[in-house]
Amino acid sequence: MTLVTLTTDFGTQDGYVGAMKGVILARAPRAQIVDISHEVPREDVAAAAFALAQAAPHFPRGTIHVVVVDPGVGGVRHGVVVDAGAQLFVGPDNGVFELVAPAPRAAWEITSRRLRRDPVSATFHGRDVFAPAAAALAAGAKPSSAGPEVALQGRLPGGPPGKVIHVDRFGNLVTDLRAATAGLRAVKVAGRVVEWARTYSDVASGALLAYLGSAGTVEVAVRDGSAAALLGVGRGAHVEPLVAI
Amino acid sequence: MTLVTLTTDFGTQDGYVGAMKGVILARAPRAQIVDISHEVPREDVAAAAFALAQAAPHFPRGTIHVVVVDPGVGGVRHGVVVDAGAQLFVGPDNGVFELVAPAPRAAWEITSRRLRRDPVSATFHGRDVFAPAAAALAAGAKPSSAGPEVALQGRLPGGPPGKVIHVDRFGNLVTDLRAATAGLRAVKVAGRVVEWARTYSDVASGALLAYLGSAGTVEVAVRDGSAAALLGVGRGAHVEPLVAI
Amino acid sequence: MTLVTLTTDFGTQDGYVGAMKGVILARAPRAQIVDISHEVPREDVAAAAFALAQAAPHFPRGTIHVVVVDPGVGGVRHGVVVDAGAQLFVGPDNGVFELVAPAPRAAWEITSRRLRRDPVSATFHGRDVFAPAAAALAAGAKPSSAGPEVALQGRLPGGPPGKVIHVDRFGNLVTDLRAATAGLRAVKVAGRVVEWARTYSDVASGALLAYLGSAGTVEVAVRDGSAAALLGVGRGAHVEPLVAI
Repeated sequence: MTLVTLTTDFGTQDGYVGAMKGVILARAPRAQIVDISHEVPREDVAAAAFALAQAAPHFPRGTIHVVVVDPGVGGVRHGVVVDAGAQLFVGPDNGVFELVAPAPRAAWEITSRRLRRDPVSATFHGRDVFAPAAAALAAGAKPSSAGPEVALQGRLPGGPPGKVIHVDRFGNLVTDLRAATAGLRAVKVAGRVVEWARTYSDVASGALLAYLGSAGTVEVAVRDGSAAALLGVGRGAHVEPLVAI
Repeated sequence: MTLVTLTTDFGTQDGYVGAMKGVILARAPRAQIVDISHEVPREDVAAAAFALAQAAPHFPRGTIHVVVVDPGVGGVRHGVVVDAGAQLFVGPDNGVFELVAPAPRAAWEITSRRLRRDPVSATFHGRDVFAPAAAALAAGAKPSSAGPEVALQGRLPGGPPGKVIHVDRFGNLVTDLRAATAGLRAVKVAGRVVEWARTYSDVASGALLAYLGSAGTVEVAVRDGSAAALLGVGRGAHVEPLVAI
Repeated sequence: MTLVTLTTDFGTQDGYVGAMKGVILARAPRAQIVDISHEVPREDVAAAAFALAQAAPHFPRGTIHVVVVDPGVGGVRHGVVVDAGAQLFVGPDNGVFELVAPAPRAAWEITSRRLRRDPVSATFHGRDVFAPAAAALAAGAKPSSAGPEVALQGRLPGGPPGKVIHVDRFGNLVTDLRAATAGLRAVKVAGRVVEWARTYSDVASGALLAYLGSAGTVEVAVRDGSAAALLGVGRGAHVEPLVAI
């Protein structure tokens, strides 16, 4: 039994996700499908990359992760299979795999008809390319059978560390600052100095705190509230580490 | 292992969907439950029918699809098992199966106590009738054991082609116009002529396009936006095909 | 194959739920994960307790239910395994198990390193404590191996019967009034007398009704509408039973 996870921005109001599940289970009856998220904000590749990075490393070896957040569907971007060593990733080459596979062992463009539905629609590669490719892999196809080996082209927006890289549903600000920074005692965001704490319940309800987040980097939150709303900031906001003198 | 899919308007904030899953798994331990949607707009039978039609045909033979979008629960409408040939459908006879089973092989009202919980509540047939019926079928019961054979009574709103039949979560307008219309070069919606394109990325961000949708009919979308919002139209809106002269 | 259900307030926009699923499946490959809800309102322990009580009793013996609605994460509250007789419950000791296990057979604090990830973060015990504990149980660990036996400390807000205990996504008001009250013919809520009916379709669209809800208690609803919105009441509102003279 092979695990196949799904991460999309399709929502679950329509039948798009169900169509993908049907395609996978019809072609790989022993696949076990696991939903990671279908509520990625629309076309938000960076948010999909972050959600995937939170979840994928915890899955067992051999898991196949399918991601369909794909503003360029039907255009020039490639559909790819990415071999990250212990796990495989399937989706558009738009940067969404950069966090989970910064240095992939190999990647292949999906061109083989065996790994696609026929015909392929111009607007729903989740159903017509990525789901059948994942099913083929789950059923034993070699990643290299997908098509020609390619170098991934997609990139996430970069920039030097010291910024918010994700705002979660609670309004917590996840930064790219490594918490190991020696002597870190606070961070400065939106002109506010936010003191370090261990966890939410160490501060009063409504108070700001900075802490070691579950992703291993510094986060900023409001206990029982939203740091994003209180501070009026979002992804990309500057975050300055303050160390003890 | 038999696949049982679920499509409801229950949302997932409450325990209603969980109750159905528990009933199915307690009675059919080898069933594999697959969520299609629990975010069908409340009591919107046509939206449920459309989501089901997007997803169900892709599932393997023998799949059992349960649908609980059921404004008439506890009233005169029948609960039914529908044999569509390759797959079974379980839910209220209110038209929700019209798109997936326009000419069913047979249908049976669910009256047998073996296929229901006892007692049956007046307001939650998802848990008390449809989940146990699906579990019984998954465990090997014959559809004809559900109860007397019946002719389906429920109908979706009809009308001649040339209209929006679904608005998806992206605001894309799905129509009932077959795209094979010879020489189709544009459609007219809400007084606007919308030109034909192959996919979203063929037009500028914010621009309208008409295209062959993944359901096989004409759709109207706005790249990176919502056609429903831009045009101010919804389900039922008139769509006129324009062909080259 | 052991069933492991998940009930959280994490939403599915982020990768938190996916991380928990990965941890479980990596440690208990034969576990079958079932989502009950990830849309519990934020930090709303009473709502989580109610959703769990709607769903859990329907699952088969041996099911392991994980709940992570945990405002006190990282603080003084214990993480616990609760043996309710036929099923096990895993989560924070904050009252969330009170409805499903009012008199548990036994409960144990989760202190064993074998049942936790190492290190344990201060803010994500769903991933670092509750998911690995559930996986260990699914893989055969004895509940008593979790750590020292404890008496549960957490309590839900109480008070005498005669109140709304839950508002569902449809705006239906679930009360704690047993419907067996002899001669019950109506209830009084927010100054309005609401007559008894069997099911929604027994009253006109937009009309109020009181009825025997699927949880076995009196509920108040508006057909095709929201009783919470119409009456302007929520959880805790007083509900007075009116009996025939």
